[in-house]
Amino acid sequence: MISRLIEKIQKTKAPICVGLDPMLSYIPAQVLDRAFEEKGQNPEGAAEAVWQFNKAIVDATWDLIPSVKPQIAMYEQFGIPGLMAYEKTVRYCQEKGLVVIGDAKRGDIGSTSAAYATGHLGSVKIGEKEFPAFNTDMVTVNPYLGTDGVKPFVDACNQFDKGIFVLVKTSNPSSGEFQDRKIDGRPLYELVADKVMEWGAGSMDGEWSNVGAVVGATYPAMIAELRGLMPRTFFLVPGYGAQGGTAEDLKLAFDKDGLGAIVNSSRGIIAAYKKDTYAKFGAEHFAEASRQAVMDMIADIGSVL
Amino acid sequence: MISRLIEKIQKTKAPICVGLDPMLSYIPAQVLDRAFEEKGQNPEGAAEAVWQFNKAIVDATWDLIPSVKPQIAMYEQFGIPGLMAYEKTVRYCQEKGLVVIGDAKRGDIGSTSAAYATGHLGSVKIGEKEFPAFNTDMVTVNPYLGTDGVKPFVDACNQFDKGIFVLVKTSNPSSGEFQDRKIDGRPLYELVADKVMEWGAGSMDGEWSNVGAVVGATYPAMIAELRGLMPRTFFLVPGYGAQGGTAEDLKLAFDKDGLGAIVNSSRGIIAAYKKDTYAKFGAEHFAEASRQAVMDMIADIGSVL
Repeated sequence: MISRLIEKIQKTKAPICVGLDPMLSYIPAQVLDRAFEEKGQNPEGAAEAVWQFNKAIVDATWDLIPSVKPQIAMYEQFGIPGLMAYEKTVRYCQEKGLVVIGDAKRGDIGSTSAAYATGHLGSVKIGEKEFPAFNTDMVTVNPYLGTDGVKPFVDACNQFDKGIFVLVKTSNPSSGEFQDRKIDGRPLYELVADKVMEWGAGSMDGEWSNVGAVVGATYPAMIAELRGLMPRTFFLVPGYGAQGGTAEDLKLAFDKDGLGAIVNSSRGIIAAYKKDTYAKFGAEHFAEASRQAVMDMIADIGSVL
Repeated sequence: MISRLIEKIQKTKAPICVGLDPMLSYIPAQVLDRAFEEKGQNPEGAAEAVWQFNKAIVDATWDLIPSVKPQIAMYEQFGIPGLMAYEKTVRYCQEKGLVVIGDAKRGDIGSTSAAYATGHLGSVKIGEKEFPAFNTDMVTVNPYLGTDGVKPFVDACNQFDKGIFVLVKTSNPSSGEFQDRKIDGRPLYELVADKVMEWGAGSMDGEWSNVGAVVGATYPAMIAELRGLMPRTFFLVPGYGAQGGTAEDLKLAFDKDGLGAIVNSSRGIIAAYKKDTYAKFGAEHFAEASRQAVMDMIADIGSVL
């Protein structure tokens, strides 16, 4: 799977993914109103608005980008209708040829992680037939439970040609509370990085492993250090834009060929029309504002590679 | 919420919860066949079987127990129909008066954790109305992202009178890989324990905090240590039975009044009819086997308190 992602990155010259993390407050009134009229002002209506919003943004950007990253929490908050919108979004993006990274941060004890891996990357056997569920191309994984919690996801990568990104150093302000604490002189995130390389060694897909790492754009020194430590591990880099990470901050996530990372932006793209820079598009043309924001992000990141 | 759980524990004299983690392989043929006939041999049929299986076990045990812990991964693997069975199970158990602990192990950066907290403990605002989604009474939370990833769940506890159990020391074989590593001479799980107490200090509900901890039954020495360290933190203790933890192992999770912990058993209860001890019930009477297994578990744990 990672080789497919890289191929698409090279084709689009855009090492980015668009974070499809819709909050109701991002969705323009005309989209909300239409959805509420059709389905009611309830979770079904909200989920319809989310789906229509996503679809418009995907339609306006898919030819420029290799991948999207829907954050499942934003759908889960609406319960079943929300998760149906998640599934619909995943399918639609895949039809458009995009690599879909499900940002689910799942992780549990072995047998339970196996169920998550089945639900998000694989397929469940019922009788003699296999049924995929959410069937994203890649998914994010939480490492706190250790090897037996991550291994089922790695197995799913190998069995179904999928990929994962394991949380190593996250982009949020509190990420250092545990992740930066020193163990035998090295921060915890480095120990996690060691394990990620170990887990991914048997999952090479060309030059890179299908087992990648999440490394936040908001901690540039650590990005550089982790890039050196993990030469064959692809990075998913959240935190660009709205969270404060700049292109200069994250250039060290890339190798000398400009490969090795995919940078996510969510709010900065999908709610672009709300920013002064793109205000001229107006709420009516929110998807065009997103397209312009994608082009600007590609240029911004391209300028440092 | 924790005071409600404690009240129910005292009434039933059973500090246990039944883990509703159905695998298809646990479900007797007659339940599977009927569900497949009705809904097809597909995820809808599997989800129907899961629901019917859960309902039978709940009907056979609800009067003996204070709580259940459905593991959402086991439902998520079937996609939307599976999650509908999860929701149906949660609602049914709540109608029976049980405290429902959603074992979801969610955790993300602040704004995303807020969406998870909304989906699992709170309600989402659409227009002027609030809509709950999965609406479990308590939920498990992963601490790897630190305070800003956990805080939204604590806020939801305070706003909606709910509870959480934060992963401190998990029951699985690899849990020590990161959790046991020493930081300034103390294992990581102790640092997490410190934070859990800090997060929970503003969420006292009687003698105990609504912010609890997951502490695995498979590591008795650590249970004892953590009980001492966290005097007002309620423990959710997985790992009893099938995973190897014994009543003797986990008695140190309780305080001198026999309070302070709730012990989970999943396979050992819901698939009891498959064990030699309960084989006499036969697959036809699987729910009665579960009832007997619950009574035996209560007696076993009662014997050490």
